[in-house]
Amino acid sequence: MLDLLLGRRLANKEGGEQKIGWAAAVPAMGLDGLGSSSYGPEAALTILIPLGVAGLGWIGWVLAPVVALLVVLYFSYRQTIVAYPHNGGVYTVAKENLGTGAALIAVAALMIDYVLNVAVGISAGVGALTSSFPQLHAYTLPLCLGILTLVALANFRGTREAGWLFAVPTYLFIACFLLLIAIGLFRIITSGGHPAAVVAPPAPAHAVEAVGLWLLIRAFAAGCTAMTGVEAVSDGVNAFREPVVREGHRTLTVICVALGLLLAGIVTVAHFYQLTALDQTRPGYQSILSQLTAAIVGRGAAYQVAMASLLAVLCLSANTSFVGFPRICRLVATDDYLPRSFAVADRRLVFSVGVGFLTATAAALLIAFRGITDHLIPLFALGAFMTFTISQAGMVRFWRRQPGRNFGRLAINALGALTTTVALAVIVAAKFTEGAWIVVLAVPVIIALLRAIRGYYDRQGEAMTMRGPFVLHDSDRPTVLVAYEERNRMTDRALQFAMTLSPDVLAVHLLRLDGPECEEDALTVLRDRFEQDIAAPLRRAGQIPPRLVQIPAPFREIEGPVLDLVERIDAATPGRSVAILIPEQVLGHWWERLLHSRRAQRLRAALLAHAGPRLMVITAPWRR
Amino acid sequence: MLDLLLGRRLANKEGGEQKIGWAAAVPAMGLDGLGSSSYGPEAALTILIPLGVAGLGWIGWVLAPVVALLVVLYFSYRQTIVAYPHNGGVYTVAKENLGTGAALIAVAALMIDYVLNVAVGISAGVGALTSSFPQLHAYTLPLCLGILTLVALANFRGTREAGWLFAVPTYLFIACFLLLIAIGLFRIITSGGHPAAVVAPPAPAHAVEAVGLWLLIRAFAAGCTAMTGVEAVSDGVNAFREPVVREGHRTLTVICVALGLLLAGIVTVAHFYQLTALDQTRPGYQSILSQLTAAIVGRGAAYQVAMASLLAVLCLSANTSFVGFPRICRLVATDDYLPRSFAVADRRLVFSVGVGFLTATAAALLIAFRGITDHLIPLFALGAFMTFTISQAGMVRFWRRQPGRNFGRLAINALGALTTTVALAVIVAAKFTEGAWIVVLAVPVIIALLRAIRGYYDRQGEAMTMRGPFVLHDSDRPTVLVAYEERNRMTDRALQFAMTLSPDVLAVHLLRLDGPECEEDALTVLRDRFEQDIAAPLRRAGQIPPRLVQIPAPFREIEGPVLDLVERIDAATPGRSVAILIPEQVLGHWWERLLHSRRAQRLRAALLAHAGPRLMVITAPWRR
Repeated sequence: MLDLLLGRRLANKEGGEQKIGWAAAVPAMGLDGLGSSSYGPEAALTILIPLGVAGLGWIGWVLAPVVALLVVLYFSYRQTIVAYPHNGGVYTVAKENLGTGAALIAVAALMIDYVLNVAVGISAGVGALTSSFPQLHAYTLPLCLGILTLVALANFRGTREAGWLFAVPTYLFIACFLLLIAIGLFRIITSGGHPAAVVAPPAPAHAVEAVGLWLLIRAFAAGCTAMTGVEAVSDGVNAFREPVVREGHRTLTVICVALGLLLAGIVTVAHFYQLTALDQTRPGYQSILSQLTAAIVGRGAAYQVAMASLLAVLCLSANTSFVGFPRICRLVATDDYLPRSFAVADRRLVFSVGVGFLTATAAALLIAFRGITDHLIPLFALGAFMTFTISQAGMVRFWRRQPGRNFGRLAINALGALTTTVALAVIVAAKFTEGAWIVVLAVPVIIALLRAIRGYYDRQGEAMTMRGPFVLHDSDRPTVLVAYEERNRMTDRALQFAMTLSPDVLAVHLLRLDGPECEEDALTVLRDRFEQDIAAPLRRAGQIPPRLVQIPAPFREIEGPVLDLVERIDAATPGRSVAILIPEQVLGHWWERLLHSRRAQRLRAALLAHAGPRLMVITAPWRR
Repeated sequence: MLDLLLGRRLANKEGGEQKIGWAAAVPAMGLDGLGSSSYGPEAALTILIPLGVAGLGWIGWVLAPVVALLVVLYFSYRQTIVAYPHNGGVYTVAKENLGTGAALIAVAALMIDYVLNVAVGISAGVGALTSSFPQLHAYTLPLCLGILTLVALANFRGTREAGWLFAVPTYLFIACFLLLIAIGLFRIITSGGHPAAVVAPPAPAHAVEAVGLWLLIRAFAAGCTAMTGVEAVSDGVNAFREPVVREGHRTLTVICVALGLLLAGIVTVAHFYQLTALDQTRPGYQSILSQLTAAIVGRGAAYQVAMASLLAVLCLSANTSFVGFPRICRLVATDDYLPRSFAVADRRLVFSVGVGFLTATAAALLIAFRGITDHLIPLFALGAFMTFTISQAGMVRFWRRQPGRNFGRLAINALGALTTTVALAVIVAAKFTEGAWIVVLAVPVIIALLRAIRGYYDRQGEAMTMRGPFVLHDSDRPTVLVAYEERNRMTDRALQFAMTLSPDVLAVHLLRLDGPECEEDALTVLRDRFEQDIAAPLRRAGQIPPRLVQIPAPFREIEGPVLDLVERIDAATPGRSVAILIPEQVLGHWWERLLHSRRAQRLRAALLAHAGPRLMVITAPWRR
């Protein structure tokens, strides 16, 4: 069943085969970045709505710095991949070059960003779907959770399968929109800059504002959402097969070139076709990419294919987080800042705790916002730019420390650090009241939690550390108590086990365990039978028989009287350990649990929870 | 917390104090019987509606046999209490006199009856409440479940508390309605048989049918619901304090006399005041007791008090089941026909599994029927009469077996058996299509289940039985494996424990447990450190050191490689047992679980589930 859903388990030595090449990595790591091309320009144009048709004159000025930033980041991250071909994520880069503080800031920002990306990506995709098919609107949340489940399942299977599963829509999306833009540019050139739209876009709104610097800055900050996801390649670099650097560079190149062409192309076409953003809350809303497609090829089959690929890319852009999040958590967990289970590879060699955590958190967000997370979008360029800045700053430090002449490389990363710092400052300023303050608050909270976890493990490790040579304190054989209700095959075997462990065996029988109405006679019978069937034959064979101890259980609990007895024995034989042997029946079917008391398990749990330092609990399983 | 809710735990020797006298027993065991007085006459009169006002002439003829039956049952059950002063329930009587088959039929019928009584009682009470306060109608189900929870909680505390908690409404109800009837009778006599109602009852419906024998028989069958609950005293007889017989007789007398007076009085008053049943589905419906109270004292404060006591008694009549059900289940479980946990007294000396099962089943019924269980009422005289018949038949057999002259006693029980058999036949015939067939079907199903449980325990007991003298097969000390991840205080102590148990200790270390990327060097370091810190010092001290075994875990699972190793050792050392010692950290806080792997627990569970017959699993708890 599990095999069918998640694939067969993988041996450690199959780890290498799970590595991926660039063609599979583009969909696996690039969906987020490529999907951003749809909402980056749109977000910038939305800010420019008050300018009316005049906004189209400015959109180029607003998005040119975004594309320029992309170019700078492309060259910066190429260098990161070269310098850190094994794990080039911002966490490693920051930790090694800037110290733990910066690394934890980056991790906190990245975790927020990844979780938001899953929720926002899926929600945006489903939003686009339901605006095409309004009858699906009532099912927004189930659709969101359904897509989340599919993406999560694909990732529980492992990155390679996930990569290929998402390849078709990704490459279709790139091909469709680059082709659309090419046709659009051709028409613009052949028409002398005045192309005729196949389906005319809605008329631009009337201008209600004159252009101002703050408006352009806000439009730029909004446009920066187009850059989210670019860091995914360097974070996921250890998923690449050899040669890692070449595969990483190719992946980064494909993603950045495609994203840059899309951004520049969309803006150019929008400018000449006079496409303006519409208010999403008004009826008749159409996204920029929908207007663009309709203007160039009309609303025929080509429009349907392009829109379908867009929907798929938006929905699946969540996948970038599923590739990056478990890997970054694994690194952080290896340093004890997250529970160690985040660093454990499961049967499919996936860090499934991270995948599960991401799924659960995103599901919680989707449920809390009922599948409509539009107002989370402003938050989520912030995390991305925090990691850009920290990563580039770390690389600057890296080149300064390296021997030899690295001035050119240092300059590129310094430019990256500088530009992203400026962009980050702009984004925080422009978006602070829109919700950026939440991120600014959440980051220190997450860092405190990470440090608390590390503190716990440190104290724990300190308490457990053992130095110096091993000393055997006492080699006396322990006193072995055997829980004894009545004689049967199970208790016979338990007594036999006990007698191989120590000559000092006590069979402990609790009186009146079921209630007050147990008869006195039965206890005498048990005592006599023990003497006759067990003790006497052993004595005759020259062996030391176990002694029967009957202790009252006045409150019908096993734990109290047994713990008391252990304490008394402990006091009487200092320096000797006590072992309690509990026979336990192994049940074949689930329903058998209804027919058996859980006394053995309850006693074991209670003893483990309360016992002193010289106690062992032995379970002797018995199968019918 | 638990103490506050359920009271402090009780020792076995406090069992005696939990016994109750007649004054507490009347509310505890009589609520069902007394509550029946409200729906018995009503049910009979409802059948007579088609006769119009002429029905009032027949109601006396219909209910006279019911009262006569009550008298017969009263004397019959007095004798049962004398004959079985310890557990006089139908199960014991039937088992000892008629055999297991009859006893199981009685038990099945009784279990159905008890569960139905809880659901129907609470539902009827809430129904009466919501017809007084229609604004509560939307909360029917939550009200039902709330009352069920309160009743269940009171019973988890134990019978004595439950008895007193319910005493006020019970005695108030008896006093109110006997007083009302007395006033009514006084007015009837002083008015020469034509009393004037304070509030006139609604006019009787027009007659649409002539009287027929089948109609009267159906009315009688409906009236028999007034008798349910009479058996509760003999079932619960072991809850009485000494002298049991006197307390039991007094309880039975109070209940039967009150019930008889109420039935006779209600019918007489109804006859002379011309109260007729109304159709419950029509607007303006009023119950007979509501009409009766209004006719005698009007709708003032006295009406409110009487109605409130009726509501309380109806709601709480469920309590009779809570007294009886766990006790009967306990008896049946002692004979292995139910899971043995039904026979275990909890911290309050309550058979809480029975209480919990009854609560859950009744809650399921209430939820399934959304709190409106009117159409279950026809079902539930049936179970009561089945137990009456079987119990009386058993008593007949009992007296025949007793030495001495018991003809008078035998005659009384024979009369009881005969009359209840006739009544049972009438009820089955009259109600078969109304739902009695469900009970007729359910009884054999329940019996089959009870017998299956007994069969399981029989086979189980057979497989575990050990006869003959105890033999110690081999006294070789076992091979002890210690699960070893790295050296620390916990593993040091585990190794020390292991060395006290056997000279043959293996420290088992699994390679590459976390994933493929664990470094080869670390393993060598671990091996060297083991030799240097543990093995070498012990060898110098002249002791046999444990051996370190490193085995690969290619699929990152512990269970498979460890089980393989155990099998290999088993094969190499036949006749010697293997013990696996697993160090386990005891965690102080729930949240610590998030920070620790559950490897120790998972390994233990897997070993217990799959290990062969010569394996022991030892847990060495370690606390920081």
